[in-house]
Parts: sequence; C-alpha cells; structure tokens
Amino acid sequence: MHPENDLQAFIREGYLHFLPHVSLDCVVFGFHDNQLKVLLVKWKKLGGWSLPGGRIKRTEHMDDAAQRTLEERTGIREIFLQQFHTFGRTDRTQNAPLGDVADLFGEPIGPDNWLADRTVSVGYYALVEFSKVNPTPDFFSEACRWWDLHELPPLLFDHNQMVTQALHALRAQLHYQPIGYTLLPETFTMPELQALYETILDRPLDRRNFQKRMLGLGYLQRLDERRTIGAHKSPYLYRFDRFQYEKALQEGLGFGQYVPMTSFAG
Amino acid sequence: MHPENDLQAFIREGYLHFLPHVSLDCVVFGFHDNQLKVLLVKWKKLGGWSLPGGRIKRTEHMDDAAQRTLEERTGIREIFLQQFHTFGRTDRTQNAPLGDVADLFGEPIGPDNWLADRTVSVGYYALVEFSKVNPTPDFFSEACRWWDLHELPPLLFDHNQMVTQALHALRAQLHYQPIGYTLLPETFTMPELQALYETILDRPLDRRNFQKRMLGLGYLQRLDERRTIGAHKSPYLYRFDRFQYEKALQEGLGFGQYVPMTSFAG
Repeated sequence: MHPENDLQAFIREGYLHFLPHVSLDCVVFGFHDNQLKVLLVKWKKLGGWSLPGGRIKRTEHMDDAAQRTLEERTGIREIFLQQFHTFGRTDRTQNAPLGDVADLFGEPIGPDNWLADRTVSVGYYALVEFSKVNPTPDFFSEACRWWDLHELPPLLFDHNQMVTQALHALRAQLHYQPIGYTLLPETFTMPELQALYETILDRPLDRRNFQKRMLGLGYLQRLDERRTIGAHKSPYLYRFDRFQYEKALQEGLGFGQYVPMTSFAG
Repeated sequence: MHPENDLQAFIREGYLHFLPHVSLDCVVFGFHDNQLKVLLVKWKKLGGWSLPGGRIKRTEHMDDAAQRTLEERTGIREIFLQQFHTFGRTDRTQNAPLGDVADLFGEPIGPDNWLADRTVSVGYYALVEFSKVNPTPDFFSEACRWWDLHELPPLLFDHNQMVTQALHALRAQLHYQPIGYTLLPETFTMPELQALYETILDRPLDRRNFQKRMLGLGYLQRLDERRTIGAHKSPYLYRFDRFQYEKALQEGLGFGQYVPMTSFAG
C-alpha cells in the first residue's frame, strides 16, 4: 500500500478500524545534558506543534495502542508508559479545530469527518532513553523532534496542560516508584542520579540525604569501578539491579519504604 | 416524558445525545461505623452488581458528566470527585456482554445497539458523607445500596479491578491531599480522624505521630469544647478550617508539607 492511500483511507473510513471519540496523547520525557526534553510533532497544515498521539484499534487494548503509537514515533519497543489523566473538556481542541481543515491531506476533513468529532483523550507519559530515540513524524506531521521542557512553544489543543499534568504525575511517581532506569546510561554516579531527580523536581536536593535514601531503596548496585574524574575525585559507579527495580516498579515502593522527598531538601 | 419512553429513546438513539465508545464509572466511598463502604447498583436483568456509571452528553464536559451521574445516584451536588484511571481493555465487559441482552428493557439491546459497543471507561472515585446519601437506582438497575468494602460481591464488567485501583489511588491521595472533610461529621475527635485514616490504610497508626502530623498540616481547628465521654476522658473536638482545607486540596500538600505515612506507623 502507498502511504498516501493509507492516509486517505484513514481519513475516509478510519472509524471502521479505530474507535471514534477516544484518542491517546503521549508526553515522552527524555533526559539529556541535565535537562528534561519532551518529544513533539509539527502538524503539516495546522501550523503548530502537538504531542504525539494516536487512535485505538477496535481490536486492540488501549495500553497496546499507546505502545504502538510510541513505537511508531520513537522506534523503541516496550516503553515504560504510565497513564496519568484523561482529558474530556468539550473545548479541548478549540484552538485547532480539525473540522475546519478541508482538503489539506488529499482527502477532505470537514466538520462531518470522524476525525473532526469530539474526542476524549487519554494521556500517557513515557520515560525513554534520549539517545535511543529516532524521532519519526506521522501522516499528519512534517517534523518530530525534542524540545526543552522549559522552552515549549504554545501547543495545539489542550497539550500544554497535558505536559503540565504529566510533569506533576512524574514528580508524584518519584515518591512511590523507582525512576531512572530508562533515563540514565547503564552505569552512573550518585551525582548523576541526583541530577536527574533535581531536574525532574526542579530544585536542589541535599547530597547526603539523597544518597542515604537512594541506597535504602535496595535496587542500586555499587560497582567496584569508580569513574576517574581528577586526582582526588573518583565517584563510585552504580547500576540498577534489574530484578529489584522491576519488583519495586510493579509493587510500588510501598508505605514501608516510602521516600519522603522533603527529607531530600537541602 | 414517561420514564419508560425515556429509557426506550435512550436505548434506540441515545448515541445522538451521548458520546459512544466512552463511559464513566464511579467508585463512591462512604465512611460508617469505622468501615469504608462502596455504593453499588444491581442491574435489572444482567443478574449482578456494578459500580454506578454513566455516559457523557455530547455538549457536556466529562467531569460535569461524572458530577451529574453521581448526583442522580446519591442526591448530592458538588461531590469531591477524583479521576483515577481509564480502563481500555477489549475484554473489559466480557463477563456481561450487553449485546446478548435482547428485548429486556422494552427495546432490544442487540449486538448492533450502540450500548453494546466497546467502551473505554473513565474511572472516578468520590468521597461522600454516608448519612447524606440517598441511594437511587437508575434506568437499568433495580437496587442501589452501600456495601462493605471488604464484602463486595463479584462485580459485573471489570468493576472489581476498578474498586481495587480506586482504593490504591485514595491511599496515595492521603499523602498529598487533605482527606476527611466529606467523610466525617462537622466536628470530630482526633481518634475519630485517626480511625478514618486507619480504615483507609487498613492498618494501625501511632497515635502521637499521627496527631503531630495532622496538626502540622494547618487545616485543623481545635475547638474550645471537648467531647464528654467519661469521668477522665474528654477528648478535644476539631473541625476543618474550610479555607485552609480547600487551599490544600487545590494546591496539594506540596513537597514542603509532605506527609510520609511511614511516620505514622506504630
């Protein structure tokens, strides 16, 4: 099949294969140069950027649809995905009504087209390895690239609000789930792990308290090697114990191992 | 309009007024006799209990639809509602396929009826004053009543899983939002507040740590009166400072005032 034909079929009769009235949007966080990055796509004709999103096939679990969408945009399989909020305001696409976009994609998207119907959108966030992502535009977009979290443009639809809520959820996740496996290289120093936490929380943390808390969680392995930086500084290298990490991810850190972030504060 | 006509119109052409493929389900928690209760409805013909649920009008914000649904089931307006998860498995209604229920409500619900279509369901939980609720069945249900959380029957659809996840979310909420205003009478003692927390967390908490933490949150007012219990026990009465409580509810307890529940443990 020719991609353009696929697009036209999707616009004309995609509702036969996908659920109407429901969509997915993904806030993909990457970590690079001590900054949080967010993956955005630029729409061919609407003249703006949005989060990567998708539709749910009628025969597909919703979570699988989110995985598929992200694999298509990033090239990565089995991404750590977390559903964080579902957006259902009637005016959520008001700043870019698809129904006003006629004939832009070789097939009219008029107000009666299924793609112009109101959707309730389920928001997921993902934590991915920045370096492994191969940003790939979809049918409707001409570009797909990383943006600094602090320098996002005004986004189409309600997507700025989605990013804000996803960040809020990610910060909350720090308290009850391990974080870092997909955001850091395989081995890392304690200052590097702390920089990740500080970047997500957007504030400094106390070094000694942070180290104590992190080691108490039981999923960090200290390696024998150290990183050679200078004559006097040779910080230990760590890696995540995959088994313990996965266990904590599935079960949560639990109330017994709860990590109050206030204890980190300097 | 006669209710039966409304029901038949809803079954026949409700999709003109409501969004297909999306539904809402509500886990309504009440607190009574030191037990958490959950509001359930019994379906007229499917032969089982489920959570109260509803549909979103095409012209209505999703959150408003949840408020409307709950007002219809409980008689209470402006309920504290929290969205906690959206359920999108293809098999989520497999244990009670509505499409197999023909002609039961005076109007056939066959496999082609819009009500038999797959839905993605957005889960909300609510905390309500047990004594103020007037449980009211809907069109499809013959009963609506409270059940003990620990004695729930097997529920239709994926609703047992919904209750489990709602409880998980409610427990998490204890850490970052105030709780209790709609679950306790206007004035209460510290042991009564502690009992609420213990019931939600399902484990005992240390009395002194609990009191210290609670008073530190800044939204409890101690009254001059005490409750007279016996010759020697006259615990202070408290009430919530509405302004501070609402502020904390909107802003979250924040990382600065974070309440680690581990500190409560006995």
